[in-house]
Amino acid sequence: MIERTKYLLADEDTPTAWYNLAADLPELAPKRNPGTGADITVDDLLPFVCRDIAEQELSTERYVEIPDEVRQIYTQWRPSPLVRARRLERALDTPARIYYKYEGGSPAGSHKPNTAIPQVYYNKAAGITQLVTETGAGQWGSSLSFAGAYFGVDVRVYMVRASFHQKPYRRLLMETYGATCVPSPSEDTETGRKRLAERAEHPGSLGIATGEAMEIAFHNPHVNYAGGSVLNHVLLHQSVIGQEALAQMALADDYPDVVVGCAGGGSNLGGLTFPFIGEQLRGGRRVRVVAAEPAACPTLTRGRLAFDFGDSGGFSPLFRMHTLGNDFVPPSMHAGGLRYHGMSPLVSSAVEAGLIEPVALRQRACFEAGILFARNEGIVPAPESTHAIRGAIAEALAAKEEGRPRTILFGLSGHGHFDLAAYEQALAGTLEDDIYDAAGVEAALTNLPAQERPALLDA
Amino acid sequence: MIERTKYLLADEDTPTAWYNLAADLPELAPKRNPGTGADITVDDLLPFVCRDIAEQELSTERYVEIPDEVRQIYTQWRPSPLVRARRLERALDTPARIYYKYEGGSPAGSHKPNTAIPQVYYNKAAGITQLVTETGAGQWGSSLSFAGAYFGVDVRVYMVRASFHQKPYRRLLMETYGATCVPSPSEDTETGRKRLAERAEHPGSLGIATGEAMEIAFHNPHVNYAGGSVLNHVLLHQSVIGQEALAQMALADDYPDVVVGCAGGGSNLGGLTFPFIGEQLRGGRRVRVVAAEPAACPTLTRGRLAFDFGDSGGFSPLFRMHTLGNDFVPPSMHAGGLRYHGMSPLVSSAVEAGLIEPVALRQRACFEAGILFARNEGIVPAPESTHAIRGAIAEALAAKEEGRPRTILFGLSGHGHFDLAAYEQALAGTLEDDIYDAAGVEAALTNLPAQERPALLDA
Repeated sequence: MIERTKYLLADEDTPTAWYNLAADLPELAPKRNPGTGADITVDDLLPFVCRDIAEQELSTERYVEIPDEVRQIYTQWRPSPLVRARRLERALDTPARIYYKYEGGSPAGSHKPNTAIPQVYYNKAAGITQLVTETGAGQWGSSLSFAGAYFGVDVRVYMVRASFHQKPYRRLLMETYGATCVPSPSEDTETGRKRLAERAEHPGSLGIATGEAMEIAFHNPHVNYAGGSVLNHVLLHQSVIGQEALAQMALADDYPDVVVGCAGGGSNLGGLTFPFIGEQLRGGRRVRVVAAEPAACPTLTRGRLAFDFGDSGGFSPLFRMHTLGNDFVPPSMHAGGLRYHGMSPLVSSAVEAGLIEPVALRQRACFEAGILFARNEGIVPAPESTHAIRGAIAEALAAKEEGRPRTILFGLSGHGHFDLAAYEQALAGTLEDDIYDAAGVEAALTNLPAQERPALLDA
Repeated sequence: MIERTKYLLADEDTPTAWYNLAADLPELAPKRNPGTGADITVDDLLPFVCRDIAEQELSTERYVEIPDEVRQIYTQWRPSPLVRARRLERALDTPARIYYKYEGGSPAGSHKPNTAIPQVYYNKAAGITQLVTETGAGQWGSSLSFAGAYFGVDVRVYMVRASFHQKPYRRLLMETYGATCVPSPSEDTETGRKRLAERAEHPGSLGIATGEAMEIAFHNPHVNYAGGSVLNHVLLHQSVIGQEALAQMALADDYPDVVVGCAGGGSNLGGLTFPFIGEQLRGGRRVRVVAAEPAACPTLTRGRLAFDFGDSGGFSPLFRMHTLGNDFVPPSMHAGGLRYHGMSPLVSSAVEAGLIEPVALRQRACFEAGILFARNEGIVPAPESTHAIRGAIAEALAAKEEGRPRTILFGLSGHGHFDLAAYEQALAGTLEDDIYDAAGVEAALTNLPAQERPALLDA
């Protein structure tokens, strides 16, 4: 007899609607038009995204129907498996039950295609011929490239220069899907040229690359911007993860005491945890939610909850979110997908409401957890995902300390096949432990647009 | 409404026994002891493998029970999905129905863990503390490393030097699992030193690397050799692929007219197709089976059916198989896993019996097929797997030509995340088309042991 390892759902169990936490959150954070300070409207967003996406961004409906064509494509890799980490449990000698929701089986290797596919679908329907975006570690850029290939929409990706050189295979994956990948900052935009003038071979940041992409979309009517995280509609699309996990935990006849996700812009964290938080807000069972962010870019634990731009070009709306300042350039670290100055406003609101506990983790400890995981569960995790693993292990060890069982669910957002150079350093003991750049954050927070324009904060 | 994409089985549907084609093949090819010319015995194999494995190698039982511990580990990624390639069908505008059995979702990214896990399991039980092996593209080396981590058995991998330098991430994957990876030929063995004396920085071959691994096992009682293909017990373990596919085709209410697999040493091909061939041999429905091999290393289409060594060190038994000669060094090509001079004796027997049709394909055409597949089905295939895709596409286009439906099943043996440099060349149009080295094969065939010792052929 064998013990159950995976909890699977059939194609037809792919969710039929996305879940929107905005419907259940006690208070919804508004977004501001940076020019007027007023709450933004659908029209304010149309220079960047198509109408369907703009409406989803501002929607407070609890459920948004998933188009059949999107659902059909989801079935190529969805529902994704929920896996019981029995070997990891034994390695930790813990009474805890550990489950992970694995998104690395998608074509691009992470959860990002969950939103790439609907974004390209809606833009294609709106007559858009090119999408532009930014990418850090490359997970988002390759996912949008994959989706672009499916719908015949041209994709142009601005990749943070440091990652562009560190991860040549990520660029090649985008090119295999037919996309173009450009190191950022670039000469293509005013945002990029300004940084290059300050410093040739500028290493870039997610904020700068986002600014470049948004600038291009702003100036071209047939070109739109596609965001991989932070935005409400992105977290809406990612809710398929948590909805499936709810059904799969029921199959396992179990329910998580704690759900752990890694936190960069918030898309994997929100996608996995919001459906559980929603259950709780509507009177269901209480669940602890832990957001594991990197100590080098500790947006939730050390940032300020304020109005700030999502990009370093000043093109985006002003989001009320935890931020380290939009021109903060985080220290280079391998979890490039977590190297972002801001946070999903929905996640920030949930943290403010006490629904999510943030914790900052150092990358050396996270890679140690990743290697332990690989040697017990087989999958080599993405550096981003190792933060969730580390957080889950801490919960499992706490359960052991207490001598009581605990059900832990964490998000394994992607695999690390393109990140093995970082594992090489971790194995050789040469991985730098990331240091928090307190002075850099202080300087960046001094430049917050909200402080330059205090009227916005009072509005 | 959505159309069904994936045909899934639950953990408990993982096969309980491996299927052995040797029980159903009309005539079983014997193996020879190179010293005596007599049929080999279990004892002849014990310097290299443990008793359980040796018995499986020579077994003619139809079913061999899978140990619970192996089956339990299989459930981490098995049963693997059977996927209907609906988007590829539409792209080809074919009346054919195309299915693929996807093995790339395993922790090491290919079908190889199906045999790595039982091999390490049996060796661990036999008190073996180290396993040595060869690897070409790295799929097998990383799979054995993964399995070694699970059972706490030390793994040492001799990697063909050309691939060692081409694919640094494969080495890093092995190291992440805790294994050691050495470029071959090496100074560790007589087999290696001889080649290095002939040529410093010798590019290596699978035959040489196999010889190095077997030499080490031969001289060390606590060290065994683990083979990733060719051998009967390897194809036995891989039969889980085809057994699951049989059950999944039934779920799809369909049955293949033709099954296509890529052919290097024969492990993916045999694993997928033997259960179908067995059904046919026992009176079930007839199925065409196509073996897609590389034009640069065309063992089945241009090799000789003769007794030859499996390695270039002369350590292995003599196998009656199609061979290009054990000291043939195939031209460098990206599908390193198909770059082998010989072939599984069971596959060779099935070809001889007219049960399998071999076809030789060029790598440029295969990469074109791989890119078409990636842009329609999302998954970037391993270079080896692109041969099966190309073969399947040829069948789909033939069906279109005929204007009649045809059910095609092919084996997608792994993903190409570690092979993107080859895709870069394919996209840039700089991929060399492989040339068949007729003179090299002729020279190697002149040195066949069967010809040096003709008594063996007559025995």
